[in-house]
Amino acid sequence: MNTTAHRTVATEDHTAACADPLGVSAAQDRGALLEEQIAGDPGRFRVLTGDRPTGRLHLGHYFGTLHNRVRLQNLGVEMYVIIADYQVLTDRDVADNLSEHVEDLVLDYLAIGVDPARSTIFTHSAVPALNQLLLPFLSLVSVAELERNPTVKDEIAHSRQSSVSGLMFTYPAHQAADILFCKANLVPVGRDQLPHLELTRTIARRFNDRYGSGSVVLPRPDALLSNAPLLLGTDGGKMGKSRGNAITLAAGADETARLIKGARTDSERHIAYDPAGRPEVSSLLLLAALCQDRTPEEVAAGIGSAGSAALKRTVTEAVNEYLAPIRSRRKAYAADRGHLRAILREGNERANAVADRTLGEVRAAMNSDY
Amino acid sequence: MNTTAHRTVATEDHTAACADPLGVSAAQDRGALLEEQIAGDPGRFRVLTGDRPTGRLHLGHYFGTLHNRVRLQNLGVEMYVIIADYQVLTDRDVADNLSEHVEDLVLDYLAIGVDPARSTIFTHSAVPALNQLLLPFLSLVSVAELERNPTVKDEIAHSRQSSVSGLMFTYPAHQAADILFCKANLVPVGRDQLPHLELTRTIARRFNDRYGSGSVVLPRPDALLSNAPLLLGTDGGKMGKSRGNAITLAAGADETARLIKGARTDSERHIAYDPAGRPEVSSLLLLAALCQDRTPEEVAAGIGSAGSAALKRTVTEAVNEYLAPIRSRRKAYAADRGHLRAILREGNERANAVADRTLGEVRAAMNSDY
Repeated sequence: MNTTAHRTVATEDHTAACADPLGVSAAQDRGALLEEQIAGDPGRFRVLTGDRPTGRLHLGHYFGTLHNRVRLQNLGVEMYVIIADYQVLTDRDVADNLSEHVEDLVLDYLAIGVDPARSTIFTHSAVPALNQLLLPFLSLVSVAELERNPTVKDEIAHSRQSSVSGLMFTYPAHQAADILFCKANLVPVGRDQLPHLELTRTIARRFNDRYGSGSVVLPRPDALLSNAPLLLGTDGGKMGKSRGNAITLAAGADETARLIKGARTDSERHIAYDPAGRPEVSSLLLLAALCQDRTPEEVAAGIGSAGSAALKRTVTEAVNEYLAPIRSRRKAYAADRGHLRAILREGNERANAVADRTLGEVRAAMNSDY
Repeated sequence: MNTTAHRTVATEDHTAACADPLGVSAAQDRGALLEEQIAGDPGRFRVLTGDRPTGRLHLGHYFGTLHNRVRLQNLGVEMYVIIADYQVLTDRDVADNLSEHVEDLVLDYLAIGVDPARSTIFTHSAVPALNQLLLPFLSLVSVAELERNPTVKDEIAHSRQSSVSGLMFTYPAHQAADILFCKANLVPVGRDQLPHLELTRTIARRFNDRYGSGSVVLPRPDALLSNAPLLLGTDGGKMGKSRGNAITLAAGADETARLIKGARTDSERHIAYDPAGRPEVSSLLLLAALCQDRTPEEVAAGIGSAGSAALKRTVTEAVNEYLAPIRSRRKAYAADRGHLRAILREGNERANAVADRTLGEVRAAMNSDY
């Protein structure tokens, strides 16, 4: 590792192990330990999680992350769920329907069992003190560090625009503010998000070193690495909101049946779980298995040589049965928009109270509470 | 002009005239017109101005900009004075004495005649809603535009650090938030600051174009180009807080006499105003002239061939006489720190009220007032 290339606004030793540069295996070990600690004393943990309001959530989101959030909540972990509305500003189509997208997210959260009495659902843009943290945090990272962030790098590489926006460029610092404003000490992440969380940890450490006078103002959050199953879209590609290949939580039973009926499979009559050799069939088996709390092999055995049509019928039934109570709750919440707005308002109030408190501590530490 | 190089997050035509790329001459013409309008209807204008809290203000600041602020205030223009405490975070020596530096600035403002009943003195870090504007504004500028900003460019060129901080890099967007949060429509600037203001105007225009639905949410501020006299430090170099060559407003009469006594001059006995040929002598003449509301030539004529010692006596008397009431007011304010804090608190409250209102309008325009 060339440490010269890592010199930054605050020169330091890097803690990442050289043999595991992304920290994946360390995070996995740590994850097992964290799960034990959560089971033993869930009250010690505060989770920050959330989504960008770009449309209705689908089964990929659900089994990828949403399900796990509700699990953590129900174990007794305190949870903050951020609706990252500022991060979608540069997407015009989304920005034009922001209000609707935000409501859709709240509905999805409530439908899956996020309990607003225990978990705080809030919108990023409604918490000024959270965003105020951005200024000290930006002073603690270098342009080089921002550029090295994989999301920013990707955006620079893939952008059709001739240049990346300042908002996207500073994304890692925003994420640090999102997490540290409520002193979350646990952040469920996928592997690709580990480097983000590492920069959040770096910012917290630098802040404490510089302004803490020996005490920890901002705790460094732990990554809870997810080992979520990967579901493919109905076209066999990556499941995506805008690809028309995803079954949303809000979809009706008929729409679900239609989507699964059109799903790509293969011509082999014998149905077997073989993710490498038969990815589309295996993804459908996995989906049914997740809905029925069985293994994909068990689902496959139940279908045997009845072919794709039988597989699809099984999957459709499993999904519709699983989602029925979620969809019914969603409808009930959707019918009372006043209640919905009240839930968001209360979440925003709680988030503001926490953010104001943290900002007060940050300003006191920085000697700027005049 | 290569327009390709100017393509940004929001593609556009550039309005700057090619023949006057910095817009200096246009700003000068505009300045004369603005002064007429101010005299005719001062209530139409709101000024944003301010300083970084890096130490006590000196005569260079005073005749360069402070004097003009008080002039505008006394003409009836509403004024917001920002103490840019977040912008000094990366300077450790300053950050460690932030509270003291902030108080010094407030004392200097009050001493020179900034009237807290008419003008709002506030600290940047105390106004979260102001800094919240940073997020939409960052979405409206590209990394390329931030990099092109002269201050950021200078910092990248001169920094002894291996990399510039994210805070410095995003400076032009912060400045836009500082100005637009209170919808200031007039910003007194030196020539070197014209490009900054241009980016603030660009951000306001893009915001209105994108979110305004035909109305102006954020007015584009005008530059009021200063033609302030340039005073040299006592060593003949640029006057600077940290160079020991500046007479601060807070300095005592004896310290002032000592500093001027030690000022660099030349060996010619005949004193004449010749800025190009005799810069140090001319700067001292200019200083006395500014204090006595005379021309430097008149001051020189009064000294004739009495030499540098006589010049220095004249300057010392002129400065001490001019600053006497300012210093006396400063002492009176310094004696009542409770009152001082109350003034700042009230200014912060007013700034917060304005910022909250603007942020509310911005969020409504962006369709994010759920």
